[in-house]
Amino acid sequence: MTSGFFGDLQPVRYEGPESTNPLAFRHYNPDEIVLGKRLEDHLRFSVAYWHSFAWQGGDPFGGQTFQRPWFDDTMEAAKLKADVAFEFFSLLGTPYYCFHDADVRPEAETLAQSIARLDEIADVFAEKQAKSGVKLLWGTANLFSHRRYMAGAATNPDPDVFAYAAATVKSCIDVTKRLGGENYVLWGGREGYETLLNTDLKRERQQAGRFLSMVVDYARKIGFDGAILIEPKPQEPTKHQYDYDVATVFGFLKEFGLESEVKVNIEQGHAILAGHSFEHELAMANALGIFGSIDMNRNDYQSGWDTDQFPNNVPEMALAYYEVLKGGGFTTGGTNFDAKLRRQSLDAEDLLVAHVGAIDCCARGLKAAARMLEDKALIAPLEQRYEGWNSLESKAILAGERSLEDIAQRVLSQNIEPQPRSGRQEYLENIVNRYV
Amino acid sequence: MTSGFFGDLQPVRYEGPESTNPLAFRHYNPDEIVLGKRLEDHLRFSVAYWHSFAWQGGDPFGGQTFQRPWFDDTMEAAKLKADVAFEFFSLLGTPYYCFHDADVRPEAETLAQSIARLDEIADVFAEKQAKSGVKLLWGTANLFSHRRYMAGAATNPDPDVFAYAAATVKSCIDVTKRLGGENYVLWGGREGYETLLNTDLKRERQQAGRFLSMVVDYARKIGFDGAILIEPKPQEPTKHQYDYDVATVFGFLKEFGLESEVKVNIEQGHAILAGHSFEHELAMANALGIFGSIDMNRNDYQSGWDTDQFPNNVPEMALAYYEVLKGGGFTTGGTNFDAKLRRQSLDAEDLLVAHVGAIDCCARGLKAAARMLEDKALIAPLEQRYEGWNSLESKAILAGERSLEDIAQRVLSQNIEPQPRSGRQEYLENIVNRYV
Amino acid sequence: MTSGFFGDLQPVRYEGPESTNPLAFRHYNPDEIVLGKRLEDHLRFSVAYWHSFAWQGGDPFGGQTFQRPWFDDTMEAAKLKADVAFEFFSLLGTPYYCFHDADVRPEAETLAQSIARLDEIADVFAEKQAKSGVKLLWGTANLFSHRRYMAGAATNPDPDVFAYAAATVKSCIDVTKRLGGENYVLWGGREGYETLLNTDLKRERQQAGRFLSMVVDYARKIGFDGAILIEPKPQEPTKHQYDYDVATVFGFLKEFGLESEVKVNIEQGHAILAGHSFEHELAMANALGIFGSIDMNRNDYQSGWDTDQFPNNVPEMALAYYEVLKGGGFTTGGTNFDAKLRRQSLDAEDLLVAHVGAIDCCARGLKAAARMLEDKALIAPLEQRYEGWNSLESKAILAGERSLEDIAQRVLSQNIEPQPRSGRQEYLENIVNRYV
Amino acid sequence: MTSGFFGDLQPVRYEGPESTNPLAFRHYNPDEIVLGKRLEDHLRFSVAYWHSFAWQGGDPFGGQTFQRPWFDDTMEAAKLKADVAFEFFSLLGTPYYCFHDADVRPEAETLAQSIARLDEIADVFAEKQAKSGVKLLWGTANLFSHRRYMAGAATNPDPDVFAYAAATVKSCIDVTKRLGGENYVLWGGREGYETLLNTDLKRERQQAGRFLSMVVDYARKIGFDGAILIEPKPQEPTKHQYDYDVATVFGFLKEFGLESEVKVNIEQGHAILAGHSFEHELAMANALGIFGSIDMNRNDYQSGWDTDQFPNNVPEMALAYYEVLKGGGFTTGGTNFDAKLRRQSLDAEDLLVAHVGAIDCCARGLKAAARMLEDKALIAPLEQRYEGWNSLESKAILAGERSLEDIAQRVLSQNIEPQPRSGRQEYLENIVNRYV
Repeated sequence: MTSGFFGDLQPVRYEGPESTNPLAFRHYNPDEIVLGKRLEDHLRFSVAYWHSFAWQGGDPFGGQTFQRPWFDDTMEAAKLKADVAFEFFSLLGTPYYCFHDADVRPEAETLAQSIARLDEIADVFAEKQAKSGVKLLWGTANLFSHRRYMAGAATNPDPDVFAYAAATVKSCIDVTKRLGGENYVLWGGREGYETLLNTDLKRERQQAGRFLSMVVDYARKIGFDGAILIEPKPQEPTKHQYDYDVATVFGFLKEFGLESEVKVNIEQGHAILAGHSFEHELAMANALGIFGSIDMNRNDYQSGWDTDQFPNNVPEMALAYYEVLKGGGFTTGGTNFDAKLRRQSLDAEDLLVAHVGAIDCCARGLKAAARMLEDKALIAPLEQRYEGWNSLESKAILAGERSLEDIAQRVLSQNIEPQPRSGRQEYLENIVNRYV
Repeated sequence: MTSGFFGDLQPVRYEGPESTNPLAFRHYNPDEIVLGKRLEDHLRFSVAYWHSFAWQGGDPFGGQTFQRPWFDDTMEAAKLKADVAFEFFSLLGTPYYCFHDADVRPEAETLAQSIARLDEIADVFAEKQAKSGVKLLWGTANLFSHRRYMAGAATNPDPDVFAYAAATVKSCIDVTKRLGGENYVLWGGREGYETLLNTDLKRERQQAGRFLSMVVDYARKIGFDGAILIEPKPQEPTKHQYDYDVATVFGFLKEFGLESEVKVNIEQGHAILAGHSFEHELAMANALGIFGSIDMNRNDYQSGWDTDQFPNNVPEMALAYYEVLKGGGFTTGGTNFDAKLRRQSLDAEDLLVAHVGAIDCCARGLKAAARMLEDKALIAPLEQRYEGWNSLESKAILAGERSLEDIAQRVLSQNIEPQPRSGRQEYLENIVNRYV
Repeated sequence: MTSGFFGDLQPVRYEGPESTNPLAFRHYNPDEIVLGKRLEDHLRFSVAYWHSFAWQGGDPFGGQTFQRPWFDDTMEAAKLKADVAFEFFSLLGTPYYCFHDADVRPEAETLAQSIARLDEIADVFAEKQAKSGVKLLWGTANLFSHRRYMAGAATNPDPDVFAYAAATVKSCIDVTKRLGGENYVLWGGREGYETLLNTDLKRERQQAGRFLSMVVDYARKIGFDGAILIEPKPQEPTKHQYDYDVATVFGFLKEFGLESEVKVNIEQGHAILAGHSFEHELAMANALGIFGSIDMNRNDYQSGWDTDQFPNNVPEMALAYYEVLKGGGFTTGGTNFDAKLRRQSLDAEDLLVAHVGAIDCCARGLKAAARMLEDKALIAPLEQRYEGWNSLESKAILAGERSLEDIAQRVLSQNIEPQPRSGRQEYLENIVNRYV
Repeated sequence: MTSGFFGDLQPVRYEGPESTNPLAFRHYNPDEIVLGKRLEDHLRFSVAYWHSFAWQGGDPFGGQTFQRPWFDDTMEAAKLKADVAFEFFSLLGTPYYCFHDADVRPEAETLAQSIARLDEIADVFAEKQAKSGVKLLWGTANLFSHRRYMAGAATNPDPDVFAYAAATVKSCIDVTKRLGGENYVLWGGREGYETLLNTDLKRERQQAGRFLSMVVDYARKIGFDGAILIEPKPQEPTKHQYDYDVATVFGFLKEFGLESEVKVNIEQGHAILAGHSFEHELAMANALGIFGSIDMNRNDYQSGWDTDQFPNNVPEMALAYYEVLKGGGFTTGGTNFDAKLRRQSLDAEDLLVAHVGAIDCCARGLKAAARMLEDKALIAPLEQRYEGWNSLESKAILAGERSLEDIAQRVLSQNIEPQPRSGRQEYLENIVNRYV
């Protein structure tokens, strides 16, 4: 027996590119083999509990638009929500989900009770996971919605908030481990500031470093073998967030000696807000060896806040998956949809339709990226462009065997005058358009 | 005998706040003692050779608007330019200037000849410095204007360009040392990319790391005892520049072990383009121990390119100098005006007027910042806000003597439920307004 | 007897610039005569009911932070809120306030009941206004928070929503008239779209034109003699809002023949989001003859959403008041603070402190603007710049007495080659800095 | 005999979607019939003379990168440039081109001589047009590059500049008419301001209105029967440009009674800079009855200046052509590529490759848009969404037959409480993805 929320909606099937069924996959065939691997195993799709089941449709100028039977602060409602969520995972056929503690259980009077509630829901999840085969991509703690966190969690001026956050994260790691979560994510939505006037930036940075070190130590101690991921975002809700972007997180990890322990979960919308393309952040994470997972939503380029829309631009998504595949593809990570319905999309069917469209776009994007890789369509010109660096002298430079004086002397004695060669950007863009 | 360019303009004098003379200082009295130091020694003003004497008034949609007698590609013109520049420094009474090689001598057919010309101009500068007492704040190499650098200098796909850039930087460090320059600056205007499609980001990062290491080694070897500074900028001219912002540069320095060798020169306009306030970048550099110097121009917040305007908003400038002073003030660094006249400001007088206004605003800003510091107007509330971290238990946490479990246990056993306290942002903003 | 909310806070007094009392005015002396008029009569300050008394501190990532005794959906709570609001107006000493229907009464089951509640609160307001002397600057209807308006009010695809909105606006105009409101404002927060895919832009524009025409007709019919104002905003909450900026509103008014009936209420934050400076929007409204009133908050230039902060940058505010004064100053309009406390500013005192600081900055700004006007500091150079247009031939051109051919012939026959003159931007910026 | 610039490059042919020839069309078959019309006649492609043949590769931080044999200020070079341009049009097979006077002839000492040179080149063009069949989509005057225009052309404080601009525009309209140009375009790149401090915005608006009226009168008088188009752009090169966006231009035209005489040429990049999507500007122009033509380039969403890149995102382009086709398609207008090679794309082949890719993307976009229209894929849901407005009562409202009171009474008497319906955004986005 089901909750009835989805009416007579049926499990989504692959029907091929000619299908006009809005509730069928046209491009995502989980069993299709791409680069020697099933498409499902490449993409590792995950549904976000919060946006899909906890968000009520509000925005800064308006209240709730969605009316869901489980919108109530009781454990009964929380369990109904869990029923609906797992029904949804089954309809959609995706292998993973993600959640914050606050998404799945109502907060209680005390932390001890809140944790007990989380554990109770975890029991429900464990059973549902076992039955459905759906797995947990990552767990995380909501350290930003409650007013206690208004001035930060780890970086709060009040050490009691730091402590409360620490206890909360411990409980979430425990549950993530219990449910077989493959990653644990930290998004520092309040780890930042509204104004430097009331902020000791240096001190807060130390607090954040200490906090993260403790998290890593604890996770390793209890044998959590998933990845620990930071999710960068430059601003919103705060004026400035410390985990601004991938490069900033890397500097932070280096400072605290955590660069081999912690990776990043990169969101398209957060990349945009930081002034980067999504593929830039992916390429940077690969270059720095800290790539973990992705949130595959999209941000409106012209709205200066996090719009968390379902992705729909295949050419852009192909470039993102191209970076993912070039780096070897996902290991513990996956494709999470940190995307919410537009607040006017009121119906149960909208939720399914939105995910179906997004999944199909991901499939198109990844398959295009895979073909580009197989054809070496972009790699061959790239290698050619840098071929000068294969010379012995060039290698000696990079190996640190030449000094500035050595090089200057050579340039002057040989009267070197380099001649520019075309960067061929339009040619390469056209190549990409052959694949998307 | 002078060049005559400035007609009968007279040296700028301090006339006090009531003066309405547009060519007098109203707030900048070099000898005024602030926090125990002369104002001139606090502010360490520098004039930028390029914008003031080499820029011709062009923009992407229009050509030259300025008509200067020295706009010609000859050494005679270069010497006339030097005459005018030093006349200007004397009229203005500022202690420092900065230049790129390309600003001061026309490029020759070969690098050897170009270096010879640079040396010839350096002789001229040395003599003028000796006579006038004006000093060199920093020297730098222009590795971005010539077409050979269109795809980068240190990060170019062609190792010959890397080599050419290396030889060029060597010559500029040599000249900077000879002229007693107190810093050497690297701005990577082409160290970035137009498109990831033709870019090996990881490889280019290695090239940049190697290049910078060689620069440091060489500077130290020849006994250059000034600071070596990177100037961050997120984009423009390229789509993405590697030295995006202060935090990004820090991560880069850490990766190559250069964080104690290299500091940053922070420009307001570049901070803005990276999505940060100027004071954020200053506070971050202080927190990371890499603060060096500043470019005190302003960027139009609503123009998405580098507008390099003379600064004029005293409240904002006060907050910037507040961070500078909080960090101990300048050592080798100073206040450089990387600012250009608007292209409609055609007259010699405009150049003087613009600097006079900017200097006065800096003086007002720094004096306001100093008074805030003396009064502990912001520091006292700040210390109060974080006072909880002075407890023994809090210190033990930060010292790494507590684990996540320790803390969780304490929170649960003591049933800690932190209560938010007002962040008092408006109160603090009002305090600032008492000083500006 | 008072509500007790403000504890022992006392009415704010003018204590002069040397005061360090955070709850005193340092610059705002209501009776000071500026340009022949009392400062209070120039500035016409108004407090916004919604942000100050109805907003709960939430943001897109966090819930309520404020805890006010009147946060409840009852008429009792609404009356307590009214008590506190008028106590606040008295403490602050400002002459005006503004409200939406939704701020002042809880919505009821039916529209008829909601209107009855509004009327009941209006009785309370009428009495309090009479006692305190506080007046209503403007009333307005909240046509954006309730889910019925999620797809627009006047521009909704459902004509029933249009009708519901019309009935609601009628009730709000009625109440505004009854309370002696000097303006009626329409902000079209949902009059726009999330996606063009489901939007008939042309049709919605016609709906909006019809709606506004009916509003004007009704207001005039019942003898409402205040101004009717549209408040432009480019986006947020929707992707695009039709009342994008002043120039766009002007085109809309022209299309529907309403340009002499409707004016604009200009908000600094909305100007910023539309890519304009505040003073641009003010100058444009003056040029087009549709200037009405202002919302004097500020937006963070680097946050891409409406931050509605209390204003604190005097130099910028001086330029805004300069445009206001140049246009003749306020008639029905005033200075409304559409500003909210930062969500960490929890205390009653914060609310007072924030307004005190903002008022002082406005006073400084307006006084500086008045002095610039009196001195013709900017006007004299401006007139000089355009003096060529005073010639007979120039006037003939502007009067339409010359054709393109006439002019071309004259240019060729006289071989006219215009010579550029300096725009003197930095000189003018320095002049402004003598006044702020 | 040819110039030899394009070496052995051959005319571009349609080879079908499977072709991997970078110099073949894969999607653009000029003779393909779409919606009953040849693709060539739908798209009406035009090459921009300035970017393709006059731009030298400079940017604000670097000089010329391109080395073309015709880069010289002589009439011989101008004729060589014309040879190369028409060779290029023939290689590409596009039917139209566009130019500014400044692109095609070097400026002379006097205006009379400059006009004579323009006439001389027009003779060359006329002959080449006759031979090749290539036509002129539009002509325009460059009123922004020369220093005389630094403070505006029509809006200059100096009436002599106004006059000079008028004479120049007359000469360009004359030539455009002679060459059979189907439109005449005005882009006001300097009609705006750098600072309000030296600007009389209202006066300049009057100047602009007068100028445009004279242009219209003259064009009609000489029997120019093409369209006169304004090209909106919000900023760059100036801080603010008066022709900000389509809605702003409409208000301007209404003010001067020109809304039936002048239309708009809409550029994607300019739309983006104004905070709009391209399709928004197209839909707005259609709604206002002023749609003229398009500049189909793209702007980097994350670079705050005009990047003028060749378009390559088919899904976005399909939405643009969808608006064009919904409005009835082009009449006098067409698809102009106001796009420039990236400055690293040095080779003749790059120029051809870039246009080929752009043309193919346009063809894909237009064909997708046409199929959506034929299928009523988006129109049917749209009509359904607004169907309530077909009722008699709704029509009476829109016809002005109901007052606010009438409607309020009906809402209250019938106790109307509208129920929201899903906006189905994601469903509609998925539909689009079936076509692109």
